[in-house]
Amino acid sequence: MCPGSFDPVTNGHVDAISRAAALYDELVVAVLVNPGKAGLFDVAERMALIGEAVSGLANVTVDSFDGLLVDWCRSHDVPVIVKGLRAVGDFEYELQMAQMNRELAGIETVFLPTAPHVGHLSSSLVKQIARFDGDVSGLVPPRVNDRLVQITGGRP
Amino acid sequence: MCPGSFDPVTNGHVDAISRAAALYDELVVAVLVNPGKAGLFDVAERMALIGEAVSGLANVTVDSFDGLLVDWCRSHDVPVIVKGLRAVGDFEYELQMAQMNRELAGIETVFLPTAPHVGHLSSSLVKQIARFDGDVSGLVPPRVNDRLVQITGGRP
Amino acid sequence: MCPGSFDPVTNGHVDAISRAAALYDELVVAVLVNPGKAGLFDVAERMALIGEAVSGLANVTVDSFDGLLVDWCRSHDVPVIVKGLRAVGDFEYELQMAQMNRELAGIETVFLPTAPHVGHLSSSLVKQIARFDGDVSGLVPPRVNDRLVQITGGRP
Amino acid sequence: MCPGSFDPVTNGHVDAISRAAALYDELVVAVLVNPGKAGLFDVAERMALIGEAVSGLANVTVDSFDGLLVDWCRSHDVPVIVKGLRAVGDFEYELQMAQMNRELAGIETVFLPTAPHVGHLSSSLVKQIARFDGDVSGLVPPRVNDRLVQITGGRP
Amino acid sequence: MCPGSFDPVTNGHVDAISRAAALYDELVVAVLVNPGKAGLFDVAERMALIGEAVSGLANVTVDSFDGLLVDWCRSHDVPVIVKGLRAVGDFEYELQMAQMNRELAGIETVFLPTAPHVGHLSSSLVKQIARFDGDVSGLVPPRVNDRLVQITGGRP
Amino acid sequence: MCPGSFDPVTNGHVDAISRAAALYDELVVAVLVNPGKAGLFDVAERMALIGEAVSGLANVTVDSFDGLLVDWCRSHDVPVIVKGLRAVGDFEYELQMAQMNRELAGIETVFLPTAPHVGHLSSSLVKQIARFDGDVSGLVPPRVNDRLVQITGGRP
Repeated sequence: MCPGSFDPVTNGHVDAISRAAALYDELVVAVLVNPGKAGLFDVAERMALIGEAVSGLANVTVDSFDGLLVDWCRSHDVPVIVKGLRAVGDFEYELQMAQMNRELAGIETVFLPTAPHVGHLSSSLVKQIARFDGDVSGLVPPRVNDRLVQITGGRP
Repeated sequence: MCPGSFDPVTNGHVDAISRAAALYDELVVAVLVNPGKAGLFDVAERMALIGEAVSGLANVTVDSFDGLLVDWCRSHDVPVIVKGLRAVGDFEYELQMAQMNRELAGIETVFLPTAPHVGHLSSSLVKQIARFDGDVSGLVPPRVNDRLVQITGGRP
Repeated sequence: MCPGSFDPVTNGHVDAISRAAALYDELVVAVLVNPGKAGLFDVAERMALIGEAVSGLANVTVDSFDGLLVDWCRSHDVPVIVKGLRAVGDFEYELQMAQMNRELAGIETVFLPTAPHVGHLSSSLVKQIARFDGDVSGLVPPRVNDRLVQITGGRP
Repeated sequence: MCPGSFDPVTNGHVDAISRAAALYDELVVAVLVNPGKAGLFDVAERMALIGEAVSGLANVTVDSFDGLLVDWCRSHDVPVIVKGLRAVGDFEYELQMAQMNRELAGIETVFLPTAPHVGHLSSSLVKQIARFDGDVSGLVPPRVNDRLVQITGGRP
Repeated sequence: MCPGSFDPVTNGHVDAISRAAALYDELVVAVLVNPGKAGLFDVAERMALIGEAVSGLANVTVDSFDGLLVDWCRSHDVPVIVKGLRAVGDFEYELQMAQMNRELAGIETVFLPTAPHVGHLSSSLVKQIARFDGDVSGLVPPRVNDRLVQITGGRP
Repeated sequence: MCPGSFDPVTNGHVDAISRAAALYDELVVAVLVNPGKAGLFDVAERMALIGEAVSGLANVTVDSFDGLLVDWCRSHDVPVIVKGLRAVGDFEYELQMAQMNRELAGIETVFLPTAPHVGHLSSSLVKQIARFDGDVSGLVPPRVNDRLVQITGGRP
């Protein structure tokens, strides 16, 4: 399973999901529901946008979770978490989470390095650019771009 | 002296305090009072929980401070600050603070690397797990676990 | 051009601006207007404080911008962004921004390493010290120090 | 497949191999033959020591390779490389290698974070300690310890 | 000026040189002569291979230097060193060198982040792949590839 | 105790030793004897140069050791190792060594951050500059500078 906020999904996420899907029989992309933090997109739309972006991948399903990631994994019999790693700065925090998840529940985490040409992408950077009418059509799937243009009233 | 937020104290803190206490004649563990940021536990309870966790260490006392750390050190004639270091990411920020504290007041900071088996612990991670009824009994002192279970209404 | 929040300008900024000014025919120091985040100083005062601190540098002007940095660069025909780099932690985020700015608009970013004796300075650290009546007169230009003492009612 | 020098295998390697073996149907541990760099143990003995240490894992085999790792993967129909990651410093080099291996041959690399209690282990550190008659019995499998004691004439 | 070993020049170097050439009126690419360390290519051939790869850039010349980089800069009236930065690991060493060069001779260093799609390239990685008959035609200029194939007797 | 190669001692070392000496009743600076690696200075001269540089510090003595650092500590009843930390890159390796030394022998290591104005100094950088007749008089104690000028035949 591949967890994240995906607010919204970017081409970096799609690259990581596609490559993870090629390595496992089945992959669940799971959107984290964070009641304390409203996103730009609600969870249902985030899931729909992911689903559309990965519709070509037959072994990928989209879900959401709240509570502890490891509880979700245990209740869904998911043995391993797959995470994309963009940068050294991400790595240390992710390592901490991975060690905690193994200690709490015996769930392993494996890391998949992002492709270099999408390594600089992040959802928050994409939203920041879109907010000022910057062109993000090369950074996100087409449908996400359409929605960002609608929301920000930006250039078509 | 060994400063921190300790909201709440974890086994990682206890490990660092125990080891620092073995290196110095006297050690003051000082809880930072941050008026702008309410914690899960108030300062008095944080101090009580630390006190209970380190009650076996005769040369350790618990205190609190607000204002500048170096002002507290000067007024208490404390010549050196001891900080546990968990990770590379911590190091750079702590180095910046240490250089500033030396420049402002001539107070030195020494760093004690955390034991590897508690290196992935942090108060915020512990609270996040407890909030979702995760089991943190192996991560914090027994009394802290009891209080977290009470507060979150979690599993006993 | 040399962008930043400059809330307020520190001796670290002045060092970086001075050195950048020696490398380019013309340098614009541009204060980022962030509508969502009120600073300690308003944008006009930040600009005035920078202007006073770099008044000895004939080829430096001070401006402000909102929106995307690359849009400002394009509309002002500025071919290159200059940023000071204090630490490894800064570097990774700045690298991400630089790659994005090149991709969005073909604007290059060059990094100038800070002088070691000011590498531990940051605006937020300075404000934190001033808030508790710490002495920051060695960390910021004289006029910034005067204003911080006024605002915080601190020691003269 | 899980490549490395393994000169000699440590408890850190055994931990990583055991956990990787639980995640994949089949795992090949492959010793890199480096003609330009003689190790303390020859390749045959390194393989034997690994084999003995992981003899309880039914789906793990031990092999060796020279030449390019990706050539070996292609000729053995191995779709993915698994590497243990101990530290931030390792990560950046490994990321570089992973991106290169994907570009050269479409072979993915996934990273498995090491368990914290063995994160500080490395073959070279173990050899350095053994050379000065230090006790490494807690750091390596029993048979590796025996051989190191024989070679260095150290304490039994 | 843009210093380096360039043994041999890679597409990553060419990207950095091209972009630096667009930022300065004149750029000298200077090959470091290291008497203590024979490269795969001699200095004359390294210079020729660079010259051919950047022949389309009118304001770039190729030179070599031994001794201290700052002495070369002083004797050639070069005010600034430009270096490509690939990774966080490079940054810290380069920062150290930059601070030393400024202290020794008042020469500034600016850093240009590498393009993400060539960030994983290095001369030593390229040579290692070529040595085992790996295909590096996508990683280096055509003439460098030809010479590597000749030297290693590799696949055409 | 404060271990190192000190080939030769630099102003960065002297700064770290002086500050460590102010924190402890007694400090032993110990030169590592590495039989496999000849330095520029032999161990006796390294010790003499340190001794001269720290002659003003009454509680500092100079010694040498071969074999394991922790064996030396045990045989001299030294409870704690003090190391200067210059950079993030150093930190990770030193953390690994510190965890190993605690595991092997219960010896703690504390880290003292270097002063920013000497953070970019290293013995190898100093030797490299001196080799090319660069002026290192501001980087090392006077007597070390004299000896480097003698050895390299450099500028007086």
